[in-house]
Amino acid sequence: MQRSHLVDAYAAAIHPPARVFDRWLGTRLQRAIAPAAIRLELWDASSPYSGPTLPIGSVVVHDRATLIGLIVDPDLSFGDAYTAGRVEIRGDLGTVVEALTRVTLGPPTWRERLRGVLERPNSLTSARRNVHHHYDLGNEFYEQWLDQDLVYTCAYFEHPQMTLEAAQHAKFDLVCRKLRLRPGESVLEAGCGWGTLALHMAHKYGVHVTAFNVSREQLAYAKDRARREGMTDRVEFIDDDYRNVRGEYDAFVSVGMLEHVGLHHYESLSQVLGRVVRRDGGRGLLHFIGRDAPRPLNAWTRRRIFPGAYAPTLAEVGAQVLTPAGMSIVDVENLRLHYARTLAHWRARFKNAEEHVRAQYGADFERAWELYLAGAQAAFSTGWMQLFQVVFVPLETAPPYWTRRDMYEPQGHAKL
Amino acid sequence: MQRSHLVDAYAAAIHPPARVFDRWLGTRLQRAIAPAAIRLELWDASSPYSGPTLPIGSVVVHDRATLIGLIVDPDLSFGDAYTAGRVEIRGDLGTVVEALTRVTLGPPTWRERLRGVLERPNSLTSARRNVHHHYDLGNEFYEQWLDQDLVYTCAYFEHPQMTLEAAQHAKFDLVCRKLRLRPGESVLEAGCGWGTLALHMAHKYGVHVTAFNVSREQLAYAKDRARREGMTDRVEFIDDDYRNVRGEYDAFVSVGMLEHVGLHHYESLSQVLGRVVRRDGGRGLLHFIGRDAPRPLNAWTRRRIFPGAYAPTLAEVGAQVLTPAGMSIVDVENLRLHYARTLAHWRARFKNAEEHVRAQYGADFERAWELYLAGAQAAFSTGWMQLFQVVFVPLETAPPYWTRRDMYEPQGHAKL
Repeated sequence: MQRSHLVDAYAAAIHPPARVFDRWLGTRLQRAIAPAAIRLELWDASSPYSGPTLPIGSVVVHDRATLIGLIVDPDLSFGDAYTAGRVEIRGDLGTVVEALTRVTLGPPTWRERLRGVLERPNSLTSARRNVHHHYDLGNEFYEQWLDQDLVYTCAYFEHPQMTLEAAQHAKFDLVCRKLRLRPGESVLEAGCGWGTLALHMAHKYGVHVTAFNVSREQLAYAKDRARREGMTDRVEFIDDDYRNVRGEYDAFVSVGMLEHVGLHHYESLSQVLGRVVRRDGGRGLLHFIGRDAPRPLNAWTRRRIFPGAYAPTLAEVGAQVLTPAGMSIVDVENLRLHYARTLAHWRARFKNAEEHVRAQYGADFERAWELYLAGAQAAFSTGWMQLFQVVFVPLETAPPYWTRRDMYEPQGHAKL
Repeated sequence: MQRSHLVDAYAAAIHPPARVFDRWLGTRLQRAIAPAAIRLELWDASSPYSGPTLPIGSVVVHDRATLIGLIVDPDLSFGDAYTAGRVEIRGDLGTVVEALTRVTLGPPTWRERLRGVLERPNSLTSARRNVHHHYDLGNEFYEQWLDQDLVYTCAYFEHPQMTLEAAQHAKFDLVCRKLRLRPGESVLEAGCGWGTLALHMAHKYGVHVTAFNVSREQLAYAKDRARREGMTDRVEFIDDDYRNVRGEYDAFVSVGMLEHVGLHHYESLSQVLGRVVRRDGGRGLLHFIGRDAPRPLNAWTRRRIFPGAYAPTLAEVGAQVLTPAGMSIVDVENLRLHYARTLAHWRARFKNAEEHVRAQYGADFERAWELYLAGAQAAFSTGWMQLFQVVFVPLETAPPYWTRRDMYEPQGHAKL
């Protein structure tokens, strides 16, 4: 026996050759991803690819069960198989995921629609549990790849070359200018993360902030920062569901929370808005991940990364949250390309921390997050997902500015 | 008989004294308008008013039938009675109408909801007839009180002190900058009025415009202007319903047309958008009168001024026009206060032309239009009506600018 025969026999033992049935399945799957110029490779290194001579990358499937899963339920199976190492990507992960996202742009499938119907509402308890699942992974984990202030929402790159830190601050200033905050005003923040926006508003705009969050790890961090910065008289961090808020405020702000509310609870969010935003002169801002058409989040993201999450359309937010609260939409901005850029920054930092994350949380966890971040970047860069900032006022109240030009001039004043 | 007795007897003959039943009706009606500090006066000069010593104005009702009409169906009766001179306003018409509008802000009544259900769709024929009703009143009529370019839509006052002419030009530039028009591009305009925007885009932005309108008077005027300005090779005015448009365009624009489409035809508008906006790099802008909550237009306005008109919510436009066309909302601006100011300009000019309009079209017509313009100004200044500009792109296409700051800097360039 020659050496090459030995190697072949060894390979065949680990990777049994694909049979006729496997090849037939492979051809079906290849057909679906061929428009993305992505090559499918089976466990025996065979490939049904016959597209352009140079594919942009390969999806390598390591066994038959995985191949079947990818055909029967690709939304869920791809992520799970990648996490478990049963699917591998050759070539640049970001490029391949973006190309796959682009070819799947289209109306919702029957499976997505069914999942939409079966979606279960978030109770106060499950809301807390869902948030815990994601945000209480440990501040240490997020410190590996977020900016130094731990801001885990879309940044605003005034210039594409801005650093991530500067872009997060620019986002805060954009939010505050859109709300036209004035010293001494009261602001309610629903879902305050690690508290950076709350502290920024209090420091730079002189407002009093009441900030709600149900993530214990994040709140402990935020409270500690408020103490260290001597802001405890200006910023109150409350460990409770935003729906339990009492009182009336000059401004309502929520950055990256609506995604976790879920359609079934828009009515109670709407009631909160109707109750807490001062009718005469109050205003609010919702910053959230949205969609062009109503459809559930990708099944894998919803199951493994963000339980209970739903990205709404503007129409859903308008008709189910703002209209019943007697609110008038003043301004909407879609920042999806800014989220794609934010995610590119996070991915680069995550890549640098890869070894550490793997050692600390395991290889599966590291692969799941690598895929999730790449998938999110692809979703925002292709137009699969949107990022909306919506400014609203009670309908009796005039819009907070005469023209939007004011938002873009640091010394801009209302000319009303 | 003394002289004063004679006068009283004469007055009593013309204005028979209000009876117990009339006074009871009057008390009911007074209760409804008392929060606006408006005094009701009956035909015998009696009044059930007991509010603040100084009411801001009076509504004088001249006969019993009118009083009953105002109680049974105020939406329709008030306008008709004012037109016929059976209701008179003492005090400033604008102030009184605004106060009345403010106290009626609230959820739709059962009558409004019923009218909403009974609304009849606009066929191609009725669309033409409805447009004819309003826009073919004669260019001469509109020349009396619009700006010199005959722009009959909300202006954009970069500074509140701008002239109406300058503000209409500023609006055109805002629209063109939001669309980021480039020389040589093709633009489809649906509902082009007297053609001023079409010519502005061609002159200043170097684009080729195809503009649709079903108002013959407006089109004749627009075509004549294009000839005089030597723009017939750059702007084509077409006497047809926009739904019959063919071909593909870089940009779609419609200023003040959506109000006349009617909910029943959003599906066909959506199909037009899906067909004519270039998927790769195309974009569009809808400028329209809207609402916060779905409800029919005021019955009188709809019956006497704008047959077939409906002002939609953003959610209706999103879900029924843009989503089915595969469009992504990029930007929304609410310019309702700019419309209130535009209407203040129109009203002042209309006031100056009052005698002429009365001589030319009759006193009833003059009063109807005086009330309509005052009512519209009140609707926009109180928040009863909104004015939305919505920018959208096919979901495969990136938003036309990196940040909106570019819109406000004349030399701004995409930094993508």
